[in-house]
Amino acid sequence: MSAPTPEIADAIAETARRARVAARELALASRAAKDQALLAMGEALTSAADAIVAANTVDLALGRDAGLADGLLDRLALTPERIAGVVEALRELATLADPVGEVVRGSTLPNGLRLRQVRVPMGVVGMIYEARPNVTVDAAGLGLKSGNAVILRGGSAAERTNRAIVATLREAIASVGLPADAVQTIDQHGRAGVRALMRARGLVDLLVPRGGASLIQTVVREAQVPVIETGVGNCHVYVDGAARLEQAVRIVLNSKTQRPSVCNAAETLLVDRAVAAAFLPMALGALAERGVRLHLDERAAAHVPETVSWTPATAEDWDTEYLDLEIAVGVVDGLEGAIEHIQRHSSGHTEAICTEDLARARQFTDRIDSAAVMVNASTRFTDGGQFGLGAEIGISTQKLHARGPMGLAELTSTKWLCLGDGQVREG
Amino acid sequence: MSAPTPEIADAIAETARRARVAARELALASRAAKDQALLAMGEALTSAADAIVAANTVDLALGRDAGLADGLLDRLALTPERIAGVVEALRELATLADPVGEVVRGSTLPNGLRLRQVRVPMGVVGMIYEARPNVTVDAAGLGLKSGNAVILRGGSAAERTNRAIVATLREAIASVGLPADAVQTIDQHGRAGVRALMRARGLVDLLVPRGGASLIQTVVREAQVPVIETGVGNCHVYVDGAARLEQAVRIVLNSKTQRPSVCNAAETLLVDRAVAAAFLPMALGALAERGVRLHLDERAAAHVPETVSWTPATAEDWDTEYLDLEIAVGVVDGLEGAIEHIQRHSSGHTEAICTEDLARARQFTDRIDSAAVMVNASTRFTDGGQFGLGAEIGISTQKLHARGPMGLAELTSTKWLCLGDGQVREG
Repeated sequence: MSAPTPEIADAIAETARRARVAARELALASRAAKDQALLAMGEALTSAADAIVAANTVDLALGRDAGLADGLLDRLALTPERIAGVVEALRELATLADPVGEVVRGSTLPNGLRLRQVRVPMGVVGMIYEARPNVTVDAAGLGLKSGNAVILRGGSAAERTNRAIVATLREAIASVGLPADAVQTIDQHGRAGVRALMRARGLVDLLVPRGGASLIQTVVREAQVPVIETGVGNCHVYVDGAARLEQAVRIVLNSKTQRPSVCNAAETLLVDRAVAAAFLPMALGALAERGVRLHLDERAAAHVPETVSWTPATAEDWDTEYLDLEIAVGVVDGLEGAIEHIQRHSSGHTEAICTEDLARARQFTDRIDSAAVMVNASTRFTDGGQFGLGAEIGISTQKLHARGPMGLAELTSTKWLCLGDGQVREG
Repeated sequence: MSAPTPEIADAIAETARRARVAARELALASRAAKDQALLAMGEALTSAADAIVAANTVDLALGRDAGLADGLLDRLALTPERIAGVVEALRELATLADPVGEVVRGSTLPNGLRLRQVRVPMGVVGMIYEARPNVTVDAAGLGLKSGNAVILRGGSAAERTNRAIVATLREAIASVGLPADAVQTIDQHGRAGVRALMRARGLVDLLVPRGGASLIQTVVREAQVPVIETGVGNCHVYVDGAARLEQAVRIVLNSKTQRPSVCNAAETLLVDRAVAAAFLPMALGALAERGVRLHLDERAAAHVPETVSWTPATAEDWDTEYLDLEIAVGVVDGLEGAIEHIQRHSSGHTEAICTEDLARARQFTDRIDSAAVMVNASTRFTDGGQFGLGAEIGISTQKLHARGPMGLAELTSTKWLCLGDGQVREG
């Protein structure tokens, strides 16, 4: 990517400086004030629903003209029901504890210094995402509750919708006495704005890209500000020789089909050769019945029911995040074979084992290096709401700072406070 | 920086792959095995002390010929006493609790899933530092105890010394049955090796640059792998109108002079105008007596004792990390003036306030956004050992992942374990 023009770089720097001023005020805001803002944001969105839907209708029409895929148009669409959903999410956010000020650890040192490590907001958080206007509200809400000012880039396809949402949210925030610049959008600067944001060293404390693999890879490669990688999920389910087979079928079906378009859906099924003959006819039949297209390796194909159609798995299939009703299936030589396959192909999001063997469950959880490891449970549980973290801003697949679902705590940093009465250091 | 040659990129990738294999083994190693390795590393260094000192003598001679500054030569020098010091540090590391496997939080979800968030090693950690062979031992020890494989770049000036140390450590690690590739050096590949390491996406989980500001800025700008910024410390002491003045003099002297060459030493003194006339003659006299060169703003210069020499502070002084017996001194309009100055010039490392006024102490700790904030204590306390964290690998001045002294826990990530008995997701 080429460098942004000086004009755009200046505009983004100015946006970031306004965010910093707002962030300093938000960092000191009480939980009560922030919750009041969240409720006001929800009420304002409800009142402005017609105007927002109207803006969205224009975005949708332009998107259709531009030939956007149906899946993208669906994500872009904001109905009154979807608006009610994000408003409800804001209300729930208001019920969660304030992460800011939480004492993480502390002690009194031998010299009498009182040491405390406390949570503080990150400061200025940038979010880059694509054509999902509900993320605009989620990001604004999570950012505000955690005391951060957010700079949003929601994709040109949703520009009008996001502009209407952001204007509504800013007014609501100002109405309770908090700074409107807690939420800003840079959609009007297009891709050059994104490039400038990625380079705004010292002005942006954290950048979270959320979307497709290519968007995330571009941000990770180009960014000069701290980034958290989210969401690419090439998730595996391994059915061990000691699995309860009917239970394993349910887990595989749920992992693959309950919501195939999201990152915690399974993309590959690995089956221990010890149970391939017993398990695969059942599982492949059930998957096919739900409309799942099957990519089978040679050993799996030996156990496919005659009535079920399938294609041979290619080398590429093992690395593909289908995000659709499609799965790669392979037979492996027990736990070792499964671990080896996963170590080679996993994106580090979520992997599951089905087994009743304690030692193998332990081996699997110890040796699989992913954000979440399931034993006898669906991969679909890797989710902030399911984990009880409240809302989530994304699922981190990197190891730095946050791993797995990122909730309010993951949008904070810490600071060390050291209270003394004249201590100086001797050695 | 230009891209490294394919040969160097391949060599670094191969180093990283060996580190990954070692890391997988280290991640499963028991605390007992790791502690045994640490003790063996210490014993091996003691036995090899003569050979290491001999290698260091060659590095020092070459450094002298190349015109290295005295300060750099001093950091490069490895005497038998310094070796005994790092050996003692390894022994202390063996007494610390193992961070790996620590349960950070957990709960049983409404559907019966047992959820645990546990600490796991980062995996492959790169360290880039300059001419400080003791860091080679510290990084290897901290890495091993936290279950990480380290790839070290210790600077060409220390190449022979580091080679001798790394060979000794690898042999010791192998002697207790752990993988020698837990510790590798890439010094032989020079700067091109550093460039390749910074671009080794997916192969390196964390890169920690430690050294001067320009080294750190280069790594942060160029790296495509996760980085933690360390160590630049433009630290401030603010003496408030409600300070105990004699105590404040002791804190200022300690912050500035107890070890001026390190990042937690103070570089700027700000004095409330309310006590400038009472405090500054005492403080400036005491600083001058210790050989500290004074850069005074106009209002501070009004209170300098006649016998004390000084120079006017320039705009640049407020942003300078002297790392030497030198300090910038300014008079400010109370707490607000101090906070405004610090917000503009701080590098986010450590700031201190001297005050007996509770409300102002609270304002200062709430509003100063630095890794550590001291009340009535020396800035010199920002240190892993002083904070009781045990050893430290550096002091993070960024907000992502780790902030302040980084000990063993900061070299880990976490993973979510989810133990079920057939749970699938409904909604």
